Amino acid sequence: MEKINRVAVVGGTHGNEFSGIYLLRKWQENPELVERASFATETVFANPQAFEANKRYLDCDLNRQFTEAQLTDVELANYEQSRAKAINHQLGPKGDAKTDFIIDLHNTTSNMGPSLILLKSDDFNKKLGAYVLAKMPDAVVVYEDQVSMAEHYFLASIAEQGVIVEIGPQPQSVIRQDILDWMEDMTGHILDFVDAFNADNLPELPAEYQAYTYVETLTLPMDEKGERIGMVHKNVQDQDFKPLNPGDPIFTLFSGEEICWQGDYEAYPHFINEAAYYDNNLAMSLGKKITVTL
Amino acid sequence: MEKINRVAVVGGTHGNEFSGIYLLRKWQENPELVERASFATETVFANPQAFEANKRYLDCDLNRQFTEAQLTDVELANYEQSRAKAINHQLGPKGDAKTDFIIDLHNTTSNMGPSLILLKSDDFNKKLGAYVLAKMPDAVVVYEDQVSMAEHYFLASIAEQGVIVEIGPQPQSVIRQDILDWMEDMTGHILDFVDAFNADNLPELPAEYQAYTYVETLTLPMDEKGERIGMVHKNVQDQDFKPLNPGDPIFTLFSGEEICWQGDYEAYPHFINEAAYYDNNLAMSLGKKITVTL
Repeated sequence: MEKINRVAVVGGTHGNEFSGIYLLRKWQENPELVERASFATETVFANPQAFEANKRYLDCDLNRQFTEAQLTDVELANYEQSRAKAINHQLGPKGDAKTDFIIDLHNTTSNMGPSLILLKSDDFNKKLGAYVLAKMPDAVVVYEDQVSMAEHYFLASIAEQGVIVEIGPQPQSVIRQDILDWMEDMTGHILDFVDAFNADNLPELPAEYQAYTYVETLTLPMDEKGERIGMVHKNVQDQDFKPLNPGDPIFTLFSGEEICWQGDYEAYPHFINEAAYYDNNLAMSLGKKITVTL
Repeated sequence: MEKINRVAVVGGTHGNEFSGIYLLRKWQENPELVERASFATETVFANPQAFEANKRYLDCDLNRQFTEAQLTDVELANYEQSRAKAINHQLGPKGDAKTDFIIDLHNTTSNMGPSLILLKSDDFNKKLGAYVLAKMPDAVVVYEDQVSMAEHYFLASIAEQGVIVEIGPQPQSVIRQDILDWMEDMTGHILDFVDAFNADNLPELPAEYQAYTYVETLTLPMDEKGERIGMVHKNVQDQDFKPLNPGDPIFTLFSGEEICWQGDYEAYPHFINEAAYYDNNLAMSLGKKITVTL
């Protein structure tokens, strides 16, 4: 990574995640808040029709449409697939993007606090994680670097560098001040980091820090017809980034029966009971705790 | 009130309030859980199409369609207006209902805990409130008795006696075990109360208790075009049933400016920042604390 000249701050990729949408409005009226000396910043409202409909999406999840294969498949033509191509034209094209860095703003109904999701574990991202943690002690850093940027289907993967700012808990279609403040703070720290990175003027960062890396996704208990027959266990609800050990209760069936986790490692659940994941009967993501060394 | 012979337990009046919908499924498989010796119980899934669509409603809010005037207006013919007439036929007709008592199950994104909303302040309801508080110390009793049953637009007003079980916080389209447990517990206590009431076998109840009564609804800050320009102040968020005094900050504008409450009484906000109320830019309800004497 040489220097970052163009940054895009994206909100409303999901139409019922309000924090980013209302921050965009604020920043469009006061662009100096997201401008820094060493790069140009643009703001992008990714899915305005979904916001109008007060839904996550109209036809399909926009933030799952950005692999290189999808972006070049002209048969994929519904609203979000078309938005993906339009945004790729505006910020990309992926693989040779005019935008150097994307910050994509999201909310979750899960108790994830202010989370920074990094799509790569290169030097730039490792330092960015350290910087944000130093500025925001409440923050959590999650690496979702299991695939290459070309294979990532997230909007933020259009550029060579992209991150997801994921703040919760906030119900869909609500604005909470605490969540809005966290999102604005984290976005500001990221922009400050990029400016300092460009000027080769980063503050001293710790030699290592704790973060999480994505391992797997668990589904809700279902019967043979695919109907949900259980829910996240109350011991796990809201315990994002708290350890889950083999044998711990993880689901409660509506019958009252408890289901225990059959894994073989110390897991760190996150996106626990996220509303949007019910479409696919997903219960939570599991990660491992890692030590990141600069 | 003589004796209650027929009780209806209603879930899914709002399609994205999941607790009641999943409890109905459980009770339909195990009807003995909602049966009692002295009355017959039926379960009603009020808005199945909205649940299918994973929305509060398709055309209009079902739980605002049950005044006598609306129920007799044949011009009101959209999906929820038609459901209202069908449910009125099934459980009513309002004014001369075959059902004596309705329990309508709801969730809120607000931090209201297990709340029991009573539509009348007669002896039956006063005793019901006392009974539920004695069994569930976490519960809150709210009287929304500002209009007569004929004028009430809630589904529960079809019968001569009807209550709303309102449990939160739970994001729309999510099942939380703690919220489900609260709803199941409160419903069970209400059914037990009715059975004891019928048998003239109520336990000794306290001479008085504290409850809340509805006063007014506040709107979110808007500009002259009707666009939201602010949000619930972080000091008020999640503080349902905590006192709000004249001059206390109540909203924060996106510009950062704080707006203070201009009322002239000690208010008790509830339904604070409820997601569903954004449709009408409602911020919260205000109540007063009252002492109910038996």
